[in-house]
Amino acid sequence: MSLVVVGSIALDSVSTPFGETADAPGGSAVFFSAAGALLHPVQVVGVVGSDYPLGALKTLEQRGVDLRGVEQAAGESFRWKARYSYDLASRETLETRLGVFAAFRPKLPETFRDARYVFLGNIDPELQLGVLDQMKAPALVACDTMNYWIQSKRDLLLELLRHIDILMVNDSEARELSGDWNIYRAARWILGKGPRQTVIKQGEHGALLVGPDSVFKVPAYPLQEVFDPTGAGDAFAGGFMAYLASCDDRSPASLRRAMVHGAAMGSFAVEAFGIQGFDKVTAADVSARVRAFRDLVHFDLPESA
Amino acid sequence: MSLVVVGSIALDSVSTPFGETADAPGGSAVFFSAAGALLHPVQVVGVVGSDYPLGALKTLEQRGVDLRGVEQAAGESFRWKARYSYDLASRETLETRLGVFAAFRPKLPETFRDARYVFLGNIDPELQLGVLDQMKAPALVACDTMNYWIQSKRDLLLELLRHIDILMVNDSEARELSGDWNIYRAARWILGKGPRQTVIKQGEHGALLVGPDSVFKVPAYPLQEVFDPTGAGDAFAGGFMAYLASCDDRSPASLRRAMVHGAAMGSFAVEAFGIQGFDKVTAADVSARVRAFRDLVHFDLPESA
Repeated sequence: MSLVVVGSIALDSVSTPFGETADAPGGSAVFFSAAGALLHPVQVVGVVGSDYPLGALKTLEQRGVDLRGVEQAAGESFRWKARYSYDLASRETLETRLGVFAAFRPKLPETFRDARYVFLGNIDPELQLGVLDQMKAPALVACDTMNYWIQSKRDLLLELLRHIDILMVNDSEARELSGDWNIYRAARWILGKGPRQTVIKQGEHGALLVGPDSVFKVPAYPLQEVFDPTGAGDAFAGGFMAYLASCDDRSPASLRRAMVHGAAMGSFAVEAFGIQGFDKVTAADVSARVRAFRDLVHFDLPESA
Repeated sequence: MSLVVVGSIALDSVSTPFGETADAPGGSAVFFSAAGALLHPVQVVGVVGSDYPLGALKTLEQRGVDLRGVEQAAGESFRWKARYSYDLASRETLETRLGVFAAFRPKLPETFRDARYVFLGNIDPELQLGVLDQMKAPALVACDTMNYWIQSKRDLLLELLRHIDILMVNDSEARELSGDWNIYRAARWILGKGPRQTVIKQGEHGALLVGPDSVFKVPAYPLQEVFDPTGAGDAFAGGFMAYLASCDDRSPASLRRAMVHGAAMGSFAVEAFGIQGFDKVTAADVSARVRAFRDLVHFDLPESA
C-alpha cells in the first residue's frame, strides 16, 4: 500500500540553548519521511533549488524513501531560520526565504498516482486540491494546514475539507479555523465540515484523535532531555500515516495505534537536531517506545467499577 | 481508614464568561471534601470567621464530611475574588482578604489524630509541619504548596518534604521549586528531596504521577463545556486521597487508579460554579466517568509489538 507525502523540503538553520544547525535538511516532507520510513516506504513530492545538497537526502533513499517526485528547479532552495527560547516553549522565526517553493506546483509521477495513503503537508490549499485531483483512488487522505492559509485562503481550505478524511492540525490552528477556543468543540466543528476524524497536535502535551463518537488522547513521551522541537509535528504525521499504510487497516483500533506510533516518532524527532536522530533509530527502538506509551497511560479497574 | 484534610475554608466571588458567584463556599479544604466525600468520609481541619454561613456547609456534613475540626474564630472569613479570561485559560485575582485565616493555627481534635491518610492543603509549611507533629501514625501524607511559600519559606518547605510521601503541585510550582523547566527533571528533583511520589497537576492537560521508576499520565476529561475552573486541583486531590483511603491500598496500581479518580473529580468541579456540581454527582456518575478515562487512553497492541 503506497504512501505519498507532498510538502516542503527546506534547509533549516535552527538555534536552541543546546546547539544549532545551519542549512540542515528539513521541511515537512523531510521530517515526515525520516519518521515514516521507519515503518513503511514513503514517496515524496516536493521541490528543491539548484543549491540543494541532494546528498544529504541519500540516507533517506537508503531507508526506502522514493525521491522520484522531488523536482529540482533553478533558483534558491526554501530556507527557514529560527531561534528557540531557553525552555523550548516558544520560538522566533528569524527568516523565511521561499525560493523555488514559492512557484511550486506539485506534479505527481505516474507511479505515485495509485497511492492509497496520501498526506498533504502544509502548502496552499489550492495546491493540496490539485494533488488530490491527480490521485486515482486514495483510501485515506490526511492533510495539515497553518494559520496563514486559514486567514488568506479560508474558502479553498473549506472546499478541501470536503474531500479529505483526516485534518491534522495543532491546537491553535483548530481554534483559529473554528473560531472556538474549546478544543473539543473546535474538533467537532471541523468534523462538521467533512473530515471523518480530526487529529489535534498539542506539542509537549501530546495529541488528540476526535471522531464522531469518541476521543482518544495520546500524551507526549516523557523526555528529560529535549534538544530541538523542530519537525515533531511532521514526524508525528509520518509515523501516523506510515503505520496505517503498513497495516492497511483504517479501523478505530488501528487509528489509535497510529496515534501512538505518531507520538513515538515525535519523541524521536525532538531528541536530536534536525532529522539526524532518525538515522540511529531501529525497529526495536520503535516498538520499545510504543510499548512504553502503554505503561505511561495504563491503569486497571476492577470489572465492577 | 480515616482521612484528614487541613486547608482553607473561604468565601469565593468568581466571575467567568458564563456567570458569577458571590461569597460562595470555597477554599482548598472545601473543594477537597466535596469531591472526596463521594468516595470516602473526610475529616476537615480549618477556620472560619464569625460571619461564615455555616449552613452552606450542611450538605457536606450530610454527605459524610466531619466538620468537628473546623474552628469558628472572631473576625472576618477568608475571602477571595477573581475573574477568569474569556477562554478560562487565565485568571486575575481581584482581592484576597485572609481575615481569620491569617492567624490560623491548626489544632486537630483528638479523634482526628489517628488518621491514616492526611492531606496538607496549601498553607504555611510551618503549619503543615505542625499538623504532622499532631498525627500519631499516618500511612500516607500528601501535601500541596504554592509559589508564595516556595519563595518565602523555602527552608521550611524543604524540611517538610523530608516528612511527606507525596508532593502534589501544579507544573509552574514544580518548575519554580526545582529551578528546572523540564517537568520530568523537576519531578525527579523533588523525589530527591524526600517524597516517594510527585503528582504534577497540569490543568486542562491532566496530571502526572512520577515515582522513582515510572511515570503515569492521566489526561483531563474532554469537556465541551467548562464553567468554572476554580477548585479543580483541590477536587483532584480530594478524589486522589479519598480513593486511596477507601481501599487502603498504596500499591503502584492503586496510585494510578487514584490519579484517575482525581481527574474524574477535577472534571466534575469545572462543570459547575463552586462546589454545587458535586451535590448532584452519584456513585454511578463517578464510576461511569472513571471508565470513560479508560476509553480515552486505551489502545491495543499485538503481543509481538
